[in-house]
Amino acid sequence: MEKSQINLPESSPEELAAYVGKRVIVHGSIYKIRKMSGFCFVILRTARHMLQCVCDNKELIEGMAEESCVILTAKVAGESRARYGVELHMISIEYLSVPEAQMPIVINGKVVDTSLENKLDFRPLTLRNEKERAIFKIQEGLLRGFRRFFEKEHFTEIHTPKIVSEGAEGGANIFRLDYFGKEAYLAQSPQFYKQMMVGVFERVYEVGPVFRAEKHDTARHLNEYMGVDFEMGYIKSFSDIMEMEVKMLTMAFELLGQEYGEELALLGVELPKMQAWGNVPILKFSEAKRLVAEEFHREPKECHDFEPEEEKLLSELIKRKFGSEFVFVTHYPTGKRPFYVMEDPDSPGETFSFDLIFRGLEITTGGQRIHEYGVQVAKMLERGMDVKDFDSYLMMHKHGMPPHGGLGLGLERLTAKLLGFENIRQASLFPRDIHRLTP
Amino acid sequence: MEKSQINLPESSPEELAAYVGKRVIVHGSIYKIRKMSGFCFVILRTARHMLQCVCDNKELIEGMAEESCVILTAKVAGESRARYGVELHMISIEYLSVPEAQMPIVINGKVVDTSLENKLDFRPLTLRNEKERAIFKIQEGLLRGFRRFFEKEHFTEIHTPKIVSEGAEGGANIFRLDYFGKEAYLAQSPQFYKQMMVGVFERVYEVGPVFRAEKHDTARHLNEYMGVDFEMGYIKSFSDIMEMEVKMLTMAFELLGQEYGEELALLGVELPKMQAWGNVPILKFSEAKRLVAEEFHREPKECHDFEPEEEKLLSELIKRKFGSEFVFVTHYPTGKRPFYVMEDPDSPGETFSFDLIFRGLEITTGGQRIHEYGVQVAKMLERGMDVKDFDSYLMMHKHGMPPHGGLGLGLERLTAKLLGFENIRQASLFPRDIHRLTP
Repeated sequence: MEKSQINLPESSPEELAAYVGKRVIVHGSIYKIRKMSGFCFVILRTARHMLQCVCDNKELIEGMAEESCVILTAKVAGESRARYGVELHMISIEYLSVPEAQMPIVINGKVVDTSLENKLDFRPLTLRNEKERAIFKIQEGLLRGFRRFFEKEHFTEIHTPKIVSEGAEGGANIFRLDYFGKEAYLAQSPQFYKQMMVGVFERVYEVGPVFRAEKHDTARHLNEYMGVDFEMGYIKSFSDIMEMEVKMLTMAFELLGQEYGEELALLGVELPKMQAWGNVPILKFSEAKRLVAEEFHREPKECHDFEPEEEKLLSELIKRKFGSEFVFVTHYPTGKRPFYVMEDPDSPGETFSFDLIFRGLEITTGGQRIHEYGVQVAKMLERGMDVKDFDSYLMMHKHGMPPHGGLGLGLERLTAKLLGFENIRQASLFPRDIHRLTP
Repeated sequence: MEKSQINLPESSPEELAAYVGKRVIVHGSIYKIRKMSGFCFVILRTARHMLQCVCDNKELIEGMAEESCVILTAKVAGESRARYGVELHMISIEYLSVPEAQMPIVINGKVVDTSLENKLDFRPLTLRNEKERAIFKIQEGLLRGFRRFFEKEHFTEIHTPKIVSEGAEGGANIFRLDYFGKEAYLAQSPQFYKQMMVGVFERVYEVGPVFRAEKHDTARHLNEYMGVDFEMGYIKSFSDIMEMEVKMLTMAFELLGQEYGEELALLGVELPKMQAWGNVPILKFSEAKRLVAEEFHREPKECHDFEPEEEKLLSELIKRKFGSEFVFVTHYPTGKRPFYVMEDPDSPGETFSFDLIFRGLEITTGGQRIHEYGVQVAKMLERGMDVKDFDSYLMMHKHGMPPHGGLGLGLERLTAKLLGFENIRQASLFPRDIHRLTP
């Protein structure tokens, strides 16, 4: 056997093309066998690619089973009809493992053609489908883009506890657990901690799980999701945060375009155009409400927040009028925002807060926070909160904090909307909802 | 006012040096005021640096309070005695916020000179100390190094649920929570999920919280910590995993050396020398046990695992004999390892597993996993486990998995040992232990 060995998971198909005419050794899983007369096509699933192989050796063909893990020795041949312009002519197979049973579900079709419930029940298998796994490569790419941005902008990465003594976001949607005899909660957000860390590093970010005991079973909620949070000090206005987000998304989309072309093509996705900061539409909540009501002749049932339908209609309208798939909605009413959000002194009842709506769904909530001790305590008392419970939170306000703000972005929501999914569960590897705790 | 503006959080002290003789505007927190006769030194804490400023304007000096957040206008002057070779001659101060109260604890000394308990109680403040925060810059650097390594080696980043229906590591140290009327647990590790994902992406990694309801109150345990986990398929032997780890640590230490020199110097840390793979000492568990017993004339109380004291003695011995601060211990007894660990067929009772011990503390556990369905089921039955509870876990084994393995590294343990701390709590921003749930 020739010594040349190419290990595809560590190289690109372009590199494989450089081996035309040579023998190579590749490993992967047999994704699909298509028998023809006298030979068969075999698709080998590697870490990232699907390699077309051809086998005309009867002995090799016999007993070949899909989802076997193998090491192939093959000769590389140019083949313009193959996905990467090359195919592998199989010489020998070494079997590392052979499946124990037939697949309970077809995973090697163009899509996994079954209900979402089924897809999720068989997740360890259905994720092996090339389109299913492409979703999570793209999700990885988004995060890589975000991190690249955070590094460039001098944010420090932090890790804050998920077992906490107080919920940051209020409300009933909080998971409780017994912590050595004390009642504890699962963090609804890293809010308190990332603010504390602004006093330390000025700019911080965290990527981590967020837990919401949301009882509604909707297409846009998960009970555990990945939050991309950042917080920054020395802002001049809460619009600094929105500007940061525009740049952050722009960088992530750029990275996707550069390094995830294969997955985007596979999923038939065109990246959204993110306008430069200054051109992204921004509307006050009250205006947005009014606009949607007028334009679509509908009477809103809820005055202090958007109904999901309104977010969709607003997106439709903004796209039609301004050609943008993104819209910032600002100045949400105080009553609907948490106690740490700064009020607009010029317009009491409105807050320096925003949501970013993308293709009909809120993907981010952010804003400026109260940084003055007196103001924060007054707001808490006004809300009937027990200030003593928040001693360690208020410590930072008492001892000096700069004007600051930040945001939280839901990674699965962004991924889902980017890829055109109606259900957010499709963008979570192992989603958790009110009915689902496995796999 | 001159238009030149330099925003230090976005530049290095070297860049500041380029502004000597010019006016600049910088923002930050007044870390320390040292009054001299007729002038005062002011240390400004920025996102990453401590800038020496000088003020001789009486009006400015009066009423200046530490931990105020300010925007300074100042002239840059060369000053060889200042940390960065420059100092700022203050011209004016704009106050963004002023602390409400005196610090309850001195945070601007060379170290925060108090008990660990106090340090942790006042964490939002004590982290503002330059040495305290440097710890977490270094922790950030470690992760950046790991991620750089993972990208280079074609690992895909994944995010797996922390609310789970089955504990992966067994034992009693698991947190329970009520999940909409069902009993659920907090993940003790991403073990099951990262294995499933090997069937999808071949190589995966995850950085996320790990929860252990450890009732022991020791200097080396946390109840929530950051796990750095990877898992990879198509390995030839479990030593592939150890090799990967050596390279991963090497890359992280390199990055620290290149980009975190200021923090390392501040903490007086010398980076450990990581030998190239092949030179790092590797010992079988049984040999290591024997060696320590012989060398230090001590009778081990526990036969199937190390006592903490033995890990320390082993490290001491290895350092003395081989000059290495790292030692891999392999082939732990089957009984002490989880059900998914592969046994050595040539030496029943021993497993293809390892720990990495660094400066007397285990910082990693890893090994090869069982990938064959029959073998895995037999092992579970042998242990009296109910195979039905693990349906979704065993799905992957049933339908084809390559030989694979991986490891989990405790980020706080590595950080603590790297920086020479006796207590792991010093390397966690907001540690959780049996007594501590706040801040």
